[in-house]
Amino acid sequence: MALIVHKYGGTSMGSTERIKNVAKRVAKWHDAGHQIVVVPSAMSGETNRLIGLAKEIMAQPDPRELDMIASTGEQVSVGLLSMALQAIGKQAVSYAGWQVAIKTDSAHTKARIASIDDAKVKADLDAGKIVIITGFQGVDEKGDITTLGRGGSDTSAVAVAAALKAQECLIYTDVDGVYTTDPRVVSDARRLNTVTFEEMLEMASLGSKVLQIRSVEFAGNYRMPTRVLSSLTDPLMPLEEEANSGTLISFEEDTNMEQATITGIAFNRDEAKITVLGVPDKPGVAYQILGPVADANIEVDMIIQNQSVEGKTDFTFTVPRVEYQKAMEVLEGSVKAHIGATSILGDSKVSKVSVVGVGMRSHVGIASQMFRTLSEEGINIQMISTSEIKISVLIDEKYMELAVRALHKAFGLESA
Amino acid sequence: MALIVHKYGGTSMGSTERIKNVAKRVAKWHDAGHQIVVVPSAMSGETNRLIGLAKEIMAQPDPRELDMIASTGEQVSVGLLSMALQAIGKQAVSYAGWQVAIKTDSAHTKARIASIDDAKVKADLDAGKIVIITGFQGVDEKGDITTLGRGGSDTSAVAVAAALKAQECLIYTDVDGVYTTDPRVVSDARRLNTVTFEEMLEMASLGSKVLQIRSVEFAGNYRMPTRVLSSLTDPLMPLEEEANSGTLISFEEDTNMEQATITGIAFNRDEAKITVLGVPDKPGVAYQILGPVADANIEVDMIIQNQSVEGKTDFTFTVPRVEYQKAMEVLEGSVKAHIGATSILGDSKVSKVSVVGVGMRSHVGIASQMFRTLSEEGINIQMISTSEIKISVLIDEKYMELAVRALHKAFGLESA
Repeated sequence: MALIVHKYGGTSMGSTERIKNVAKRVAKWHDAGHQIVVVPSAMSGETNRLIGLAKEIMAQPDPRELDMIASTGEQVSVGLLSMALQAIGKQAVSYAGWQVAIKTDSAHTKARIASIDDAKVKADLDAGKIVIITGFQGVDEKGDITTLGRGGSDTSAVAVAAALKAQECLIYTDVDGVYTTDPRVVSDARRLNTVTFEEMLEMASLGSKVLQIRSVEFAGNYRMPTRVLSSLTDPLMPLEEEANSGTLISFEEDTNMEQATITGIAFNRDEAKITVLGVPDKPGVAYQILGPVADANIEVDMIIQNQSVEGKTDFTFTVPRVEYQKAMEVLEGSVKAHIGATSILGDSKVSKVSVVGVGMRSHVGIASQMFRTLSEEGINIQMISTSEIKISVLIDEKYMELAVRALHKAFGLESA
Repeated sequence: MALIVHKYGGTSMGSTERIKNVAKRVAKWHDAGHQIVVVPSAMSGETNRLIGLAKEIMAQPDPRELDMIASTGEQVSVGLLSMALQAIGKQAVSYAGWQVAIKTDSAHTKARIASIDDAKVKADLDAGKIVIITGFQGVDEKGDITTLGRGGSDTSAVAVAAALKAQECLIYTDVDGVYTTDPRVVSDARRLNTVTFEEMLEMASLGSKVLQIRSVEFAGNYRMPTRVLSSLTDPLMPLEEEANSGTLISFEEDTNMEQATITGIAFNRDEAKITVLGVPDKPGVAYQILGPVADANIEVDMIIQNQSVEGKTDFTFTVPRVEYQKAMEVLEGSVKAHIGATSILGDSKVSKVSVVGVGMRSHVGIASQMFRTLSEEGINIQMISTSEIKISVLIDEKYMELAVRALHKAFGLESA
């Protein structure tokens, strides 16, 4: 007997029929003697419907009120799933985030989980009940409802699993695991049985959007074994088979000993690049540029500062494409004159492609093979950034798919 | 400056455009220097949609889980209305019932309010904010969400008004006040400027469904002046005019001094009558019949016990038509044999018609005029029950409209 957390996405919860299927699957695990906590998302389309209503009222909805509204989608889901379990003879009880004290900070629409009170949940589990907890949301110190941002149900599930010291957190989704790259781009992409936490972090942050990155961080911080697996299989498939399907994010050091050097090719289509030209090269200037951008809640990804020439330098960074306009306004509005920059250039049609793998640390040849492959395809590299386990390049977005396919092949990642 | 509570029904909240109109009306009151608390219902159709989803999962949904789901409709409403006020430059903040500690008992789907913590709301009002609180719901001692039953937003509004010691509670609805009878039945029915609490209680409980009866009880217990008025008027109509429109439920003893003896004709189409025949006439038998019915949560209205003949009596009572089948099952299942009744008869096609008015206490002629009027129309009276301020008769449902029109005319209630 083990304590297992299941997470189901909006598609799995998309209709009452599908919710009944989720209930069958959950009941199967409970029948096998496990204690089960379920964290479901809102029914697919529901969060968008709610946000749409808010935007009809206010183009830029007040974040606190938006959370009040958006959090209701999951509340409906947990109630329906609890009923579906009761309808097939299980004892089940649902909770909204605030009811099991999922405490967060007050950053509405993108709050972070601070703590969870597990006493109520443990008591229910010990009484033989299946416990269903809303994903995506919590409550701040003032008692206001907060949401964790898109994909936040993954984070909720991992956080709940960590708080309850669950044996494993199973993220049921509409893909059957983590692949060497997106199968929609490379048809012979291969499913990975395991990835390390670090690799998954890079794969997720670089655009392989199987899991929300913060859920991976949570899994890492608490060393919570987390498995991504398909919700589209027969809910009554043998439990043993299901328990070993998908991709396990592992925290065992040696898991990847036998794996290939490169685990996968990640990419992010929706990047934008901003270059501040003719910046005086003196201490504090990077902060003067990026401080106001961060204050505007815009995430900055790659950052490059060129060698200075005659006391002037150029400063380039990337932001999510949706934030591009806002970032340009911040820079043109206050930063440019303040730091005495010559001009600000932007390009919102760039993409990032990365090769990822824990094995690359000791392989100096990876970078050169990557660059040669892109060169052979005639793809110009605009920026480069590296870490212990990845090399990323920024390229014109029109070459993105070509680059991913060429690199996938060059590093021998295709399925046998 | 006064503290005023506004309540808006589902129709008024039915679309984002309508919510913007509600915001305009609320802002007008705030602009005039009043402190305003708003209690809106769910958008029309939303509660039915949510209950429909629940019933797709479970024919008899678990009440606790149903409340979890059904309460979300109002949560969306408060967030949207708060945004609509912010969009026109007002400071506004929304709260779910649990956030302002609307404590109820644990009778899910029909909970009763026990207390409200007004500290948070007062602080917001003093800071110049408009406060919006979910109707229809609260939280029990265990921290579970409860709902108050259909129409519960009226009760919430009056309870909030009482807790805050508001000057007046305005119930905006799709009728423009309380009439001498339903204008759909009698075309020249007249709007009443004031009714006493007792009359309103009878009018509401007898089927003039302008307000939920529990909200009237609340208003009575706390002597909260409550006004029913139209939400369909121009939101920017002069405030003075709006403030005196509709019908005020009054607690001033002399309000009705100059009113006619009879205030109105109430009716309830959806009654059912049950007669238990041949009951031994001994102490405790009424309880043995009605106890199990009450335990099944069926409301009993009129009750008559006939004079006994040879130690046997007949016992007749009415229940809401939707509960008829259930009540019959309870009686046939356990009660009949236990008390040794001869047989149980039922008729689910009866209606109740009542004349209501505080003025009737001292007018013995009212009853005879009522019975003569019905007799002249050839309508047979099946049961009679009386109180200080009303006389009710049960008749065949097919005569209901005829009876209401005849009584309305006989008591001179038509508009001038």
